[in-house]
Amino acid sequence: MIELWFDFSSPYGYLASTQIDAIARRHAREVVWKPFLLGAVMKVTGAVPLVAVPMKADYARRDLARTARHLGVPFAMPARFPSASRPTAAGFWAIASGASSGDGGVAEQARAYARAVYRMYFVEGRTPDSQEVALEAAASVGVDRDRFLAALAAGHAKLDAVTDEAKQRAIFGSPFIIVDGEPFWGADRLPMIERWLETGGF
Amino acid sequence: MIELWFDFSSPYGYLASTQIDAIARRHAREVVWKPFLLGAVMKVTGAVPLVAVPMKADYARRDLARTARHLGVPFAMPARFPSASRPTAAGFWAIASGASSGDGGVAEQARAYARAVYRMYFVEGRTPDSQEVALEAAASVGVDRDRFLAALAAGHAKLDAVTDEAKQRAIFGSPFIIVDGEPFWGADRLPMIERWLETGGF
Repeated sequence: MIELWFDFSSPYGYLASTQIDAIARRHAREVVWKPFLLGAVMKVTGAVPLVAVPMKADYARRDLARTARHLGVPFAMPARFPSASRPTAAGFWAIASGASSGDGGVAEQARAYARAVYRMYFVEGRTPDSQEVALEAAASVGVDRDRFLAALAAGHAKLDAVTDEAKQRAIFGSPFIIVDGEPFWGADRLPMIERWLETGGF
Repeated sequence: MIELWFDFSSPYGYLASTQIDAIARRHAREVVWKPFLLGAVMKVTGAVPLVAVPMKADYARRDLARTARHLGVPFAMPARFPSASRPTAAGFWAIASGASSGDGGVAEQARAYARAVYRMYFVEGRTPDSQEVALEAAASVGVDRDRFLAALAAGHAKLDAVTDEAKQRAIFGSPFIIVDGEPFWGADRLPMIERWLETGGF
């Protein structure tokens, strides 16, 4: 199993999200997307966002833009950063909840929603901290508005459970990619993940 | 100019040091090695070593061993970690001081000394915090013991100046590689550095 753990406010999470499905497909694998609330885990590790650390903030902005160019994906550092992400993350789980019945189409719809939310934040600069953005992203991938709103309370509960799972499994960053039990932290580990899939581990 | 900034107690610095010269050579370039005291800069950024952070410590050990296998270099996480590195870093600058006269042989001898110190710590488990290790590394690359000891006070002064330069230039991590003014932090940026050298920047 390949799991992509990410927070909707994480720029490196966005960058990894643009690559991981293609990498998995090259090895006939699928990716389970798992948005969670990184801030809740950071309270345990005592970590602070890279851009909040003296000296590192300027570097991070430069590295993010450069990495996006390196990967060939659009990226614009949002003026409002960081951001809360609960409304959109809960929206993901509201959509994905139907997937528990084995409906692969629902899982793909949830991923498409996630891509839309990430694009809205890291290309268009719209923060993932409002229900308005969640509703717009959901509509853009064909999710029925009433179904979405009806499932939102369950989505929040699922998000809390997934965030607890992250704490339990020491998933302390975003993106955090787990390949058959092997943890990889950071968009910069994508080439190593590709090799891991090629070789079955090294 | 390509600068490799590193601390002798930095495992990712060790890993980058095993690769950077070969990368530079492929593009007919040379690397200026600059050991400094990362701890002094971390007092400014408030950063703590990765292995001292809850959850991240286990991950870091795993990632270091895996990255070493990925690069095909020997690595054994030292039992004593982290370590101070002033005695060996001052030793580097004691040896390199002769290089200011334009003697390329001295610069190469200092790099060979650095490789020896790194190997002693991250392969043999001998901490870089003693004059004994510095002297042994120096002897292993043919440095005259008396010349080394005579230059040591100047080496300490140069190390302090270089560490101040790191603070001024926001060099907050190890390895920190600067390619024609473009900063790259981390051994994981080596592929991007290679592309930067190939293309002249992107």
